[in-house]
Amino acid sequence: MSDTPDSAVRDAVTSGFPRFLDELREWLRIPSVSADPERAADVDRSARWLAESLRRTGFPTVEVWETEGLPAVFAHWPAAEADAPTVLVYGHHDVQPAERGDGWQSDPFQPTEREGRLFARGAADDKGQVYFHTLGVTAHLAATGRTAPAVGLKLLIEGEEESGSPHFPALVRAHAGRLECDAALISDTGMWAADTPTVCTGMRGLIDCQIDLSGPAQDIHSGSFGGAVPNPAEAAATLAAALHDDRRRVTVSGFYDGIVELTEEERRLFAELPFDEAAWLRTAHSGATLGEEGYSTLERIWARPTAEVNGIGGGYQGPGGKTIVPATAQLKLSFRTVAGQDQEKIQQSLREWVAATLPTGVRYELTFWGATRPCLTPLDHPALRSLVRAMGRAFEQPIRFTREGGSGPAADLQDILGVPVLFLGISIPSDGWHAPDEKVEIDLLRKGAEAAAYLWEELGAHPRPATARRPTTPGP
Amino acid sequence: MSDTPDSAVRDAVTSGFPRFLDELREWLRIPSVSADPERAADVDRSARWLAESLRRTGFPTVEVWETEGLPAVFAHWPAAEADAPTVLVYGHHDVQPAERGDGWQSDPFQPTEREGRLFARGAADDKGQVYFHTLGVTAHLAATGRTAPAVGLKLLIEGEEESGSPHFPALVRAHAGRLECDAALISDTGMWAADTPTVCTGMRGLIDCQIDLSGPAQDIHSGSFGGAVPNPAEAAATLAAALHDDRRRVTVSGFYDGIVELTEEERRLFAELPFDEAAWLRTAHSGATLGEEGYSTLERIWARPTAEVNGIGGGYQGPGGKTIVPATAQLKLSFRTVAGQDQEKIQQSLREWVAATLPTGVRYELTFWGATRPCLTPLDHPALRSLVRAMGRAFEQPIRFTREGGSGPAADLQDILGVPVLFLGISIPSDGWHAPDEKVEIDLLRKGAEAAAYLWEELGAHPRPATARRPTTPGP
Repeated sequence: MSDTPDSAVRDAVTSGFPRFLDELREWLRIPSVSADPERAADVDRSARWLAESLRRTGFPTVEVWETEGLPAVFAHWPAAEADAPTVLVYGHHDVQPAERGDGWQSDPFQPTEREGRLFARGAADDKGQVYFHTLGVTAHLAATGRTAPAVGLKLLIEGEEESGSPHFPALVRAHAGRLECDAALISDTGMWAADTPTVCTGMRGLIDCQIDLSGPAQDIHSGSFGGAVPNPAEAAATLAAALHDDRRRVTVSGFYDGIVELTEEERRLFAELPFDEAAWLRTAHSGATLGEEGYSTLERIWARPTAEVNGIGGGYQGPGGKTIVPATAQLKLSFRTVAGQDQEKIQQSLREWVAATLPTGVRYELTFWGATRPCLTPLDHPALRSLVRAMGRAFEQPIRFTREGGSGPAADLQDILGVPVLFLGISIPSDGWHAPDEKVEIDLLRKGAEAAAYLWEELGAHPRPATARRPTTPGP
Repeated sequence: MSDTPDSAVRDAVTSGFPRFLDELREWLRIPSVSADPERAADVDRSARWLAESLRRTGFPTVEVWETEGLPAVFAHWPAAEADAPTVLVYGHHDVQPAERGDGWQSDPFQPTEREGRLFARGAADDKGQVYFHTLGVTAHLAATGRTAPAVGLKLLIEGEEESGSPHFPALVRAHAGRLECDAALISDTGMWAADTPTVCTGMRGLIDCQIDLSGPAQDIHSGSFGGAVPNPAEAAATLAAALHDDRRRVTVSGFYDGIVELTEEERRLFAELPFDEAAWLRTAHSGATLGEEGYSTLERIWARPTAEVNGIGGGYQGPGGKTIVPATAQLKLSFRTVAGQDQEKIQQSLREWVAATLPTGVRYELTFWGATRPCLTPLDHPALRSLVRAMGRAFEQPIRFTREGGSGPAADLQDILGVPVLFLGISIPSDGWHAPDEKVEIDLLRKGAEAAAYLWEELGAHPRPATARRPTTPGP
């Protein structure tokens, strides 16, 4: 399949690795938290840092694309051959909020190496996985002796993924011409385990929202008024508690309408994975499983739609007691969706559900922070097969299949650009995405760069394979 | 009934009022927040300030009584006549938490006068109502020409009322001999309205608690793990939402057992009060009533047991969204109880209710902050009749009856000392207890001092009336 010996790629990755790691550390020091308006300048700085670095890597075209929110970075390195396919790599340079006081062993924005792991907010999600592509393309060129990659290489690295990518669809639509490609490659997911490399075939979607509730115009004495007026903190609780029925199914009307159910083959493949529930619970830092009746844990997190209370707050939260009826409360909810669900209909149903579930006398405001669609690519797609071969060369092992429970704007690329979506991710479950002590396994960053280098070669050997077959775009 | 013309008392109150007000302002500047461990030194300072002031007023015996928590102040001024009855005045010098940022127009600990009102945390609850007794006894002596009051006057002003008076029963038991009296007078309640003076005949009890819930050992990614493990924020909501049934009755098992139900006469008297629901809702800063089916608003807040969510918190509460399953959540609940309920049994039922209501896999800790018993004194008690006459002289109007929805350690005095409990309170519903912009009507402080002066005279004219008849101590 390939003329280049794997050792040439491996050597090139090894020789470039120290510099790669130094640069990644520098990028991780920028606290590009997209959810926090006070960090907007840092997200901007992060975009400009990446653009400069991509120019140094050799990309002839590098641009910072402004949005109505936070900026994305676009880069393009055309292939040498005219009939070579073009791949658009997607990732994000924004990160989740993090404070040392949340339980971090070291400052989340001062990358720290311990036992072969690099600890920092964004180490795995997603700066580490974006940045190995700079080493990947460098190694691809060095190993093959090329001056341009075997595929047309485009990068689109957005700055609002952790905020639900509110402006991403508009950005992709606005630049659809320049983003034209034969496949999109998402580097923002994970593998089963360091010793069990896998390729992901789909991601769940996300709808997240906040409900702000108001009762009394100010906190009032619970002895004088309690038990006679509506309490917004109890109302927030009423909503959160009503989300699931006794079978742990989401109660929002029509929530399960139209979903692409798991096939028997998929259920069998999932069941064959070396899943150790006790080990998984340790990774989840949890003591028990709880989820939708009739489905395994893997099915629940990969292929079933879910609802989660991300935050609830109202009334007195300081030390001791305070006998009040609180004036306000808030509830942050998010929903993971799967292929076939209609996100717009679910948002409308959610509006109706909130109105119908709340007690009278409590006023509310429902705000959607954004919605990300789910996506799914069939197991037998030729571009997916190329990716599986590239991963197999990097890991020297058979590659298995998973899905990703998390969400990303993969489906926007699939829907707007009309291309299949592939996933090249080397993060593992213990990396602690969104949690304190997020880290990345340093050796897997190396494997990621290798796999990318092989992938450009594999895809270049199959001129424009992706256009031969369109992905199954599931659902509406 | 009285030899002293009312004008003499009135003149004495007027002449002492400016100094009284200056001193009260000074006391209100001490932020004696008992719920906040960091304010312990301020609560201590408040006790010592009051002790010094009572000495200046003329009390021959003044002592600061230490407890296992925060200190109380005791004072005693024996009557001139050997057969005079003794009255124990109860109040508290600690206050609710308050921060300027909670919505105060002026600093809660910098007393500010606006339109005849004094705004400060503790202005009405309870420093203002404790402190008018210094002016009351001074006016009583000045108007009657006495050098000692017509009743033996004892004061017990505690420092933990806003924290549920955890050490008060032990304090009263330890000093029961020195606290011996014929009646207790609670100055920690309110009246119907500035133009509708009332006497309160009972208070509800209070049980307050906190439930700390733990799920994952740290916040985890809701895409990777959500929908498959228990969520403590949802669990907190489940508890809060399960507190009431569809008829707004509390669902804790046995909660209503043994309660002294309202008599038809009491329901009639309550119904005859000039209750304007729209005006009450404005005072409650609320837009709608909601409470136990089958009872009026006044019955709900005065004579029915209730449950309230005082605070709920868990997960992300900052700006925007954060897709996590939170590690922890907390829930602050309080219960108002009425005569006849068994507080210990309710606490045990609550333990069982929490254990039975929570989903498996969520760990919890239930902490009771304290429990205050309810109390009730019959309408025809002779000491109560004296109080009604004293109030009538101060307000020059007929006096009506109410109950108090709030809670205080009145029942401990009733139970431990075996005396009837009377209530002399001049606060009105708009005073904003426990809320931002707490205030007291300055003219009503004057009326409170007058009423106290008349009361010592009225009770002194009836040597040891209280021992003639024991109160109905309701329930267990």
